[in-house]
Amino acid sequence: MHPLDATDPLAAYRDRFEPAPGVVAYLDGNSLGRPLTASLDRLATVAREEWAGRLIRGWDEGWLDLPLTVGDELARVALGAAPGQVVIADSTTVVIFKLVHAALAARPGRDELVIDRDNFPTDRYLAETIAADRGMTVRWIDTEHDGGVTPELVAAAVGPRTAVALFSSVAYRSAWLADIPAITQVVHDAGALVIWDLCHSAGVVPTPLDEWGVDLAVGCGYKYLNGGPGAPAFLYVRESLQAELRQPITGWLGAAAPFEMGQGYTPAAGIRAFLSGTPPILGIQAMRDMIALIDEAGLNAVRAKSVALTEYALSLVDELLPEAVLASPRAAERRGGHITIDDPRFAALMPRLWEAGVIPDFRRPDGIRLGLSPLSTSFAEVEAGVRTIAALLD
Amino acid sequence: MHPLDATDPLAAYRDRFEPAPGVVAYLDGNSLGRPLTASLDRLATVAREEWAGRLIRGWDEGWLDLPLTVGDELARVALGAAPGQVVIADSTTVVIFKLVHAALAARPGRDELVIDRDNFPTDRYLAETIAADRGMTVRWIDTEHDGGVTPELVAAAVGPRTAVALFSSVAYRSAWLADIPAITQVVHDAGALVIWDLCHSAGVVPTPLDEWGVDLAVGCGYKYLNGGPGAPAFLYVRESLQAELRQPITGWLGAAAPFEMGQGYTPAAGIRAFLSGTPPILGIQAMRDMIALIDEAGLNAVRAKSVALTEYALSLVDELLPEAVLASPRAAERRGGHITIDDPRFAALMPRLWEAGVIPDFRRPDGIRLGLSPLSTSFAEVEAGVRTIAALLD
Repeated sequence: MHPLDATDPLAAYRDRFEPAPGVVAYLDGNSLGRPLTASLDRLATVAREEWAGRLIRGWDEGWLDLPLTVGDELARVALGAAPGQVVIADSTTVVIFKLVHAALAARPGRDELVIDRDNFPTDRYLAETIAADRGMTVRWIDTEHDGGVTPELVAAAVGPRTAVALFSSVAYRSAWLADIPAITQVVHDAGALVIWDLCHSAGVVPTPLDEWGVDLAVGCGYKYLNGGPGAPAFLYVRESLQAELRQPITGWLGAAAPFEMGQGYTPAAGIRAFLSGTPPILGIQAMRDMIALIDEAGLNAVRAKSVALTEYALSLVDELLPEAVLASPRAAERRGGHITIDDPRFAALMPRLWEAGVIPDFRRPDGIRLGLSPLSTSFAEVEAGVRTIAALLD
Repeated sequence: MHPLDATDPLAAYRDRFEPAPGVVAYLDGNSLGRPLTASLDRLATVAREEWAGRLIRGWDEGWLDLPLTVGDELARVALGAAPGQVVIADSTTVVIFKLVHAALAARPGRDELVIDRDNFPTDRYLAETIAADRGMTVRWIDTEHDGGVTPELVAAAVGPRTAVALFSSVAYRSAWLADIPAITQVVHDAGALVIWDLCHSAGVVPTPLDEWGVDLAVGCGYKYLNGGPGAPAFLYVRESLQAELRQPITGWLGAAAPFEMGQGYTPAAGIRAFLSGTPPILGIQAMRDMIALIDEAGLNAVRAKSVALTEYALSLVDELLPEAVLASPRAAERRGGHITIDDPRFAALMPRLWEAGVIPDFRRPDGIRLGLSPLSTSFAEVEAGVRTIAALLD
């Protein structure tokens, strides 16, 4: 056994995940988390006992509340948020769209949307499209190679014209971990609202949203929350904003009395108003087990192992891949759960890595991204992965 | 065996569905279709072999195209549409939102949106919200008790100010089956676009969209397509409109080159541009088996059994529930796959029906809706259901 695994207090959790035959090192848990065996069992049970067995009665027996009950669990375990502020719904794209529109409507007379060039494409594309549709302007923040948004960069970009800023807690390529409370304060000082995209932090980096005074946040269910390919997203709306904000995709399940089916839309009270269509019941199942596992391990312990894994990966890269350029912050406190290294030879390497059972991610133009999901990734995998990259480059 | 089941050429298909212990008559297949046993097997296999086994490689091995490949199958089997015009995505609410916005942008200078008061709440709520957000007007069509939209009612409502009309193929309460080709022509004569909501027809009533010159359509995956609770929806965009229309929820998977992750949104060619976020892979699975089953049985045969089931239900209602008021069309050619009957005593009856294992739907204020999904519903169930309603009323 690898000595770091031997002393890892969370090592045993890895056995709870379903095996992946032929995979030597899975280093992409931040793109698609591995399923817990409990989640495969739960999916089968829900399909057979609830769907087949209870049929339409399932809606009265828990399904209707599932986006809120699982949202509350996620809020408590991973987001530092009190109940009634998080729902599971839609895709990340759709929930960002909803919250941007809701936030813009709450800042009339302001005509700028602030975002950084390193943000995930969906966030940028939505900012551009929404700004164009509403006759607004996108103000771009240019970031550094290994960086992301800082309070200084944000302070230079926001002002009296800013309606909304949209940033990622952890940059999808560089893993830059933003100073969420400081940046939130900077945006608030300008009188604007901020939306945090937590896709690459939810489940791996603590983000006490309530304590930090975050307005709005979204995140992904299939990365560190292991909800399965294309699992639904989540959104957070601070309780004090819920009565004021209105999201634009007004479907029946966000209405105050959906089964009245009456004339005229009246939004539900509270966070339910941020739902649109019928909740994806099967898609919500798997993340329940991962949320429970994070709760069992403790999010701070998960973050500690995450830091240890990326530190170890960095030390291996320094030793074995001297020509690769680190595209991630070297300082652990500014780094999320993955690291990216750039080398012009990496693109050609990917098929051979897959053949060898080593599965990192690739990010254009020439980055290998090592995503190290703490509860399912061993130090031995990290070592095997980096050693295989080095061996194949030779 | 019930004599009508004995002579039903599709009777044997019912055995392909997973049993529902204690259920005497499931009469709500138009709200939530029963799972095929094959679908439970497929869900388990995909979760274990594809998700757990292939992990992130699954995206390269079929998942990325799944919304389009399953969309093409649905198009061929149930929608009379050539390939490249249908995708599985989002919820019905979200796909309606996308198509309404796309259609409105294609009719600049027109400021009215036409919809009927009997349309499903989501459709109405979206029409109102979108119109309000864009400074437009909703023009309402009032329909009859057992009715829905007719070419005459639509002709009286549309005109040079109409940008878009949004109607249901089959009314969710009355089951009124609209004359889609005639109404489409009326809307086109006014220079507007029409969106058909096929939630209550997809998989049970043939709607040859290409032949009828339909512009845009949406529908639901969990009713007659048996995709499971909250399964994703589908949308149809006529090929000739795809280059012109732009949907507003621009996520990375609708972009031309998502993995370039470049600056600036360029929509994908064709129907892929109508996708937004990461496709819900688990949610798409179950409907694949139902689409295959409809293909095997033949949609025209499914419709023939559907008509026979509702005709039989009507004859039983006439005989056993003389005080109930039929809220559905008596003419089979204007009726979808369900019937609704009204009686002020019905609301109090529902818990007792469920206790007796008879599961219809209830629609305010006092309607029982019998939704008869042809491949999973027997004539014996229809008889047991109506007889139980009559017995409990006594």
